[in-house]
Amino acid sequence: MSKRVKEILSWYQGETPGTLTNLARLLNHGRLAGTGKLVILPVDQGFEHGPARSFAKNPVGYDPRYHFELAIEAGCNAYAAPLGFLEAGAAEFAGDVPLILKLNSSDSLFSGSDPCPAVTGDVDDALRLGCAAIGFTIYPGSSARNEMYQQIRELALEAKSAGLAVVVWSYPRGGGISKEGETAVDVIAYAAQIAAQLGAHLIKVKPPTDHIEQEAARKVYQSEGIPIGTLAERVRHVVQSAFNGRRIVIFSGGAAKGHDGLIEEIHGIADGGGFGSIIGRNSFQRPKSEAVELLHEVMDIYANA
Amino acid sequence: MSKRVKEILSWYQGETPGTLTNLARLLNHGRLAGTGKLVILPVDQGFEHGPARSFAKNPVGYDPRYHFELAIEAGCNAYAAPLGFLEAGAAEFAGDVPLILKLNSSDSLFSGSDPCPAVTGDVDDALRLGCAAIGFTIYPGSSARNEMYQQIRELALEAKSAGLAVVVWSYPRGGGISKEGETAVDVIAYAAQIAAQLGAHLIKVKPPTDHIEQEAARKVYQSEGIPIGTLAERVRHVVQSAFNGRRIVIFSGGAAKGHDGLIEEIHGIADGGGFGSIIGRNSFQRPKSEAVELLHEVMDIYANA
Amino acid sequence: MSKRVKEILSWYQGETPGTLTNLARLLNHGRLAGTGKLVILPVDQGFEHGPARSFAKNPVGYDPRYHFELAIEAGCNAYAAPLGFLEAGAAEFAGDVPLILKLNSSDSLFSGSDPCPAVTGDVDDALRLGCAAIGFTIYPGSSARNEMYQQIRELALEAKSAGLAVVVWSYPRGGGISKEGETAVDVIAYAAQIAAQLGAHLIKVKPPTDHIEQEAARKVYQSEGIPIGTLAERVRHVVQSAFNGRRIVIFSGGAAKGHDGLIEEIHGIADGGGFGSIIGRNSFQRPKSEAVELLHEVMDIYANA
Amino acid sequence: MSKRVKEILSWYQGETPGTLTNLARLLNHGRLAGTGKLVILPVDQGFEHGPARSFAKNPVGYDPRYHFELAIEAGCNAYAAPLGFLEAGAAEFAGDVPLILKLNSSDSLFSGSDPCPAVTGDVDDALRLGCAAIGFTIYPGSSARNEMYQQIRELALEAKSAGLAVVVWSYPRGGGISKEGETAVDVIAYAAQIAAQLGAHLIKVKPPTDHIEQEAARKVYQSEGIPIGTLAERVRHVVQSAFNGRRIVIFSGGAAKGHDGLIEEIHGIADGGGFGSIIGRNSFQRPKSEAVELLHEVMDIYANA
Amino acid sequence: MSKRVKEILSWYQGETPGTLTNLARLLNHGRLAGTGKLVILPVDQGFEHGPARSFAKNPVGYDPRYHFELAIEAGCNAYAAPLGFLEAGAAEFAGDVPLILKLNSSDSLFSGSDPCPAVTGDVDDALRLGCAAIGFTIYPGSSARNEMYQQIRELALEAKSAGLAVVVWSYPRGGGISKEGETAVDVIAYAAQIAAQLGAHLIKVKPPTDHIEQEAARKVYQSEGIPIGTLAERVRHVVQSAFNGRRIVIFSGGAAKGHDGLIEEIHGIADGGGFGSIIGRNSFQRPKSEAVELLHEVMDIYANA
Repeated sequence: MSKRVKEILSWYQGETPGTLTNLARLLNHGRLAGTGKLVILPVDQGFEHGPARSFAKNPVGYDPRYHFELAIEAGCNAYAAPLGFLEAGAAEFAGDVPLILKLNSSDSLFSGSDPCPAVTGDVDDALRLGCAAIGFTIYPGSSARNEMYQQIRELALEAKSAGLAVVVWSYPRGGGISKEGETAVDVIAYAAQIAAQLGAHLIKVKPPTDHIEQEAARKVYQSEGIPIGTLAERVRHVVQSAFNGRRIVIFSGGAAKGHDGLIEEIHGIADGGGFGSIIGRNSFQRPKSEAVELLHEVMDIYANA
Repeated sequence: MSKRVKEILSWYQGETPGTLTNLARLLNHGRLAGTGKLVILPVDQGFEHGPARSFAKNPVGYDPRYHFELAIEAGCNAYAAPLGFLEAGAAEFAGDVPLILKLNSSDSLFSGSDPCPAVTGDVDDALRLGCAAIGFTIYPGSSARNEMYQQIRELALEAKSAGLAVVVWSYPRGGGISKEGETAVDVIAYAAQIAAQLGAHLIKVKPPTDHIEQEAARKVYQSEGIPIGTLAERVRHVVQSAFNGRRIVIFSGGAAKGHDGLIEEIHGIADGGGFGSIIGRNSFQRPKSEAVELLHEVMDIYANA
Repeated sequence: MSKRVKEILSWYQGETPGTLTNLARLLNHGRLAGTGKLVILPVDQGFEHGPARSFAKNPVGYDPRYHFELAIEAGCNAYAAPLGFLEAGAAEFAGDVPLILKLNSSDSLFSGSDPCPAVTGDVDDALRLGCAAIGFTIYPGSSARNEMYQQIRELALEAKSAGLAVVVWSYPRGGGISKEGETAVDVIAYAAQIAAQLGAHLIKVKPPTDHIEQEAARKVYQSEGIPIGTLAERVRHVVQSAFNGRRIVIFSGGAAKGHDGLIEEIHGIADGGGFGSIIGRNSFQRPKSEAVELLHEVMDIYANA
Repeated sequence: MSKRVKEILSWYQGETPGTLTNLARLLNHGRLAGTGKLVILPVDQGFEHGPARSFAKNPVGYDPRYHFELAIEAGCNAYAAPLGFLEAGAAEFAGDVPLILKLNSSDSLFSGSDPCPAVTGDVDDALRLGCAAIGFTIYPGSSARNEMYQQIRELALEAKSAGLAVVVWSYPRGGGISKEGETAVDVIAYAAQIAAQLGAHLIKVKPPTDHIEQEAARKVYQSEGIPIGTLAERVRHVVQSAFNGRRIVIFSGGAAKGHDGLIEEIHGIADGGGFGSIIGRNSFQRPKSEAVELLHEVMDIYANA
Repeated sequence: MSKRVKEILSWYQGETPGTLTNLARLLNHGRLAGTGKLVILPVDQGFEHGPARSFAKNPVGYDPRYHFELAIEAGCNAYAAPLGFLEAGAAEFAGDVPLILKLNSSDSLFSGSDPCPAVTGDVDDALRLGCAAIGFTIYPGSSARNEMYQQIRELALEAKSAGLAVVVWSYPRGGGISKEGETAVDVIAYAAQIAAQLGAHLIKVKPPTDHIEQEAARKVYQSEGIPIGTLAERVRHVVQSAFNGRRIVIFSGGAAKGHDGLIEEIHGIADGGGFGSIIGRNSFQRPKSEAVELLHEVMDIYANA
């Protein structure tokens, strides 16, 4: 195993050997195996946004097998999805790519102001499907945040004792913060910290903007001169905010966007010391060959960072 | 076993052989045995709407044995009902028709705006009654949707490990959507996707109209040119939305209606690749011989599709 | 073991020997071992206030190992933190300093008027991490207080039967009291009483001001001539309010402040019979050598009190 | 994944995707990855025969880390050992080689005539240690055989629902058969069948001799003209006896022996269609470089078979 | 913490931080704190041999508090006893000395030939009494050995997840071996190996004689030239047999004997790299001052080894 992966595992000393083994499975698979970097394919949009909005653009994506194939061909470190999508391919593609079972999901047929996903899978499902990790979304800033924090605590404790890794999507959203604040650098850094304190091994956040949401935070950013001018600087700050870089932090690709915009963003993340990307719509809404090419381009940026 | 049934079962690879066996029991029983199509008799209206509204029109239906007899004589693939109705006939008709135990039900003596049924049976009941599957209703769009999603997850996990199949009635309803939206094509497609992601093996939705409820969805339907002009086109889209046709989707008969209206609808469903129908009031509120004749007519449409 | 520690343990007669043992671990560790006084390092600000506000001033504090090291070098009686921070060092520093797992935490990305923290850890976590105690925050004065009281009751019962000690942060706050009232002497005394009645072994409150919040209380303070003019007098009253001094009451250092202000406050607490201090921001936001020096100065005041 | 591994996994259709994933982990690791062949390092002799008899010849083997290193350097598909040996290295070598936790073990300080190992680990241990499979020894022919069969049934059921693979060591021994009969071809074939019928995914037996133990069997071998003259023929018969080759059967290296004898035996096994070897004493009782060389030689024979 | 203790803890990487913490409590307490050596006081003779045989010689020993006092005054690393003895003093002496709860015990009112102790306490008792470890006796060589091995497996799994350490008394005895064989060097080494393989963190065996019990072992001792002439050589071999010295092995004082005989034995153990002694009858059957003096003498030998 590479020195870098050994170093990363050392940050999780005290976790069970099973959890370390599954973290190693994620870090040692695919095109970025051994680099300490990760590119993960997540497909929860079918549940979150509905099927047509997710898959009509590239209709092969209606078929759950497509996403397994995409993750495998592109050499992603892992494929993450809700229960149904994993059940529909886990046997056929057993052993081909590490799986992350998303244990909660929101649909958008009811939209309260403050989101609170449903728990839609559990640790026993993750084990029977052969997953390396569970995934869970929290929405700091939502009035329902505490319910989510408490759910992940229980699920994480169970997952860890069964030797699984724990991945937390930390997406600030809800009545506590403004729309612009959802990606504000202070808020994203805070979201990474919360996920780490809740016991996440791997944290997914959105790329931060240079907006600062909280007045109390603004004073500190100014007085301490924390550099947040470039994306790389902001990413560096977010990674620092996750236990001084001792937790794996990866960044979402966000809404579907053009090739150049995405690549520029990846450069910023890689330069700032981000551990990788989790790219959903920007990959599965493109034709497969184009998506594989794009993902390889992204991986190469991380590999050379 | 027919090639088509084998093909359908292959979509569920990874489920226990017990679940596959029970799916096969549903697919290989009755007049449509082996075709890959299903017509199911559901009778939960006694609980949902009250006895007189349900059975006064054809009072033999007060007797639970009547519905077993109807399903058997008509050659339905299965008969679905709540606990009491199944308990009252499961012994007498043991082995005559596959049973689906509806595990949740709403009554209409209390009508909150956002529905949330009570869990009124469990997996152990389904086993002791010899059922092939559990049934469960979710109401996407209801503020209580998450509670239902979490209930079915727990029940489905238990059912699958006990080798049962899982049937989900996915009926959008509640504060999140308009009355017209309950059968909007985008909403029905989304409801099918949610049920599939929750791990349903067999999904029941209502026939979709050409209304589009969600603005974000409308843009995609237009930009991608998804055809929704005819019922067959809409059904095809809904079936695609359930894992590209790799989950069995059947359609409800809806409110009692005239013979011709129903038959026309069935033609649309069959032409669009729907897997069958689940017809309650339109069958048990008719005299038995008439109901059997109607059901045979419906089955023949599917058999020839 | 020192006479004084034996005397303190005698107040908890009836608790399990495990709980007594863990109280002894807290009282017999570090520079104040055996004195019956405690100085504890708490670091929950990352979760409560966000990472930059907490750690930017002394950026080594982003690293969870720093706080273990600080507590060890300074000779604190214990180090208290939420799950993530303890998980990230408990193996590496096993046996070096008694740990207190904070079982609930609030973040400030959503700020309802009446605070109610999330439960973010549990007794099984405390055991697997080797902690001597659980910690829990209650907010008397909040409309959500009863939820917190009920949570700590359940957790405390479980902790005690597993032989752990129970530390309660009792911070009046919420719709029931004014901003000034949060540190009013009658309110702080009351908060100490509530924590003691809930079964806390060790209680943390803020240093009380001479404000009196509740009219009904004011009458008594006046008619009985309870002296509250000096901090020492107020501390004495608060300690008395915690079972006549038969529960360990320690005082928070509060917001970061200058050296002299802090030292003066400690003198007041020590003179009033306070059992010690729990000093977060005032220690970890200083350079380590300065922080250690300050903590030693504080410890010496208690040692000589 | 290679076609051959896909083919092998197809034999286990109906097992959970987790179990398939773990079988794939075994088949896709090390020097024989993807060939459908396996060479496994087992070290349970410390428990079974005592430390000096096991490790004195190559004393580095007293150190549990040595065997991890040997399995990793040699590129074995897996390393199998009892609880203590795995606990002593599973964290340090997490992710470096698939692990098989031996769940029962016999020591030789008490030697009843009919062996019955103690259950010395369980499925929860296998999960927390990150194992791919559980291992279990049965002794057909022992008066205590039924106790073992019942233990493995319970453990295997639990392991399968947690997504682990099940490896059974099937060693005929005890009052029911003669010493010579322990490796008789009829007995070994029978032992493979029993393990397969008990639900083993991977079966380990000893290389069979041309002795026939049971009179009833001899008649059939003769009347049907089953060829058992060469080791390859006997191995072919044993593999056939394990569900016509649809269960993975591997062969033990047996007592320490010379290089040439071992290599000749491996040729026989490989020619007969055996799936590989599990070589303990013949590898860890040699100096490491020599052992790695030998194991590579063995692997090459299988790779070219 | 001393370098040596850190080194010892590193052998147990992969165990929970709680278990590491409790191992540290044992290693960092008393007169030998920090040296990596241990002297433990065990008093289970009341249950094992009856009260008069145990305590009449020094009748203060009838009083359970006496043994706590002795362990404390002598500065032992820990005190080990069955449930009743610990319950009778754990509160009074809470925090004064780490406790080990012996979870099984044999009495001698019924003496079958092959011993099998009763389980007389459990992990929850150890937690409520504040113990650092559980203790358990196995009798390799007994026909009932497997029952004991299975009991300790279950208890050890539970203890480890609750953060306790596991101490195993491994005493060969029973129908499988001769009286002389109980302390034969091959048998003692084997007993240490078995305990280590069962997952013990700390192993207690008897000082080995130069007798060799098993013929199969004798050959290896001779052919490999394993030195067993002196006690130091034999101890070194036993320590090597416990994972090459990566498990803590301590030695019993055995039957009451004269001062000089005991001291000579301790020198042999210390010279051979033994980690310490567990001395019952030789300490509590002497007058306290004499016992303390003797224990100090023993500790000094280890401290200077």
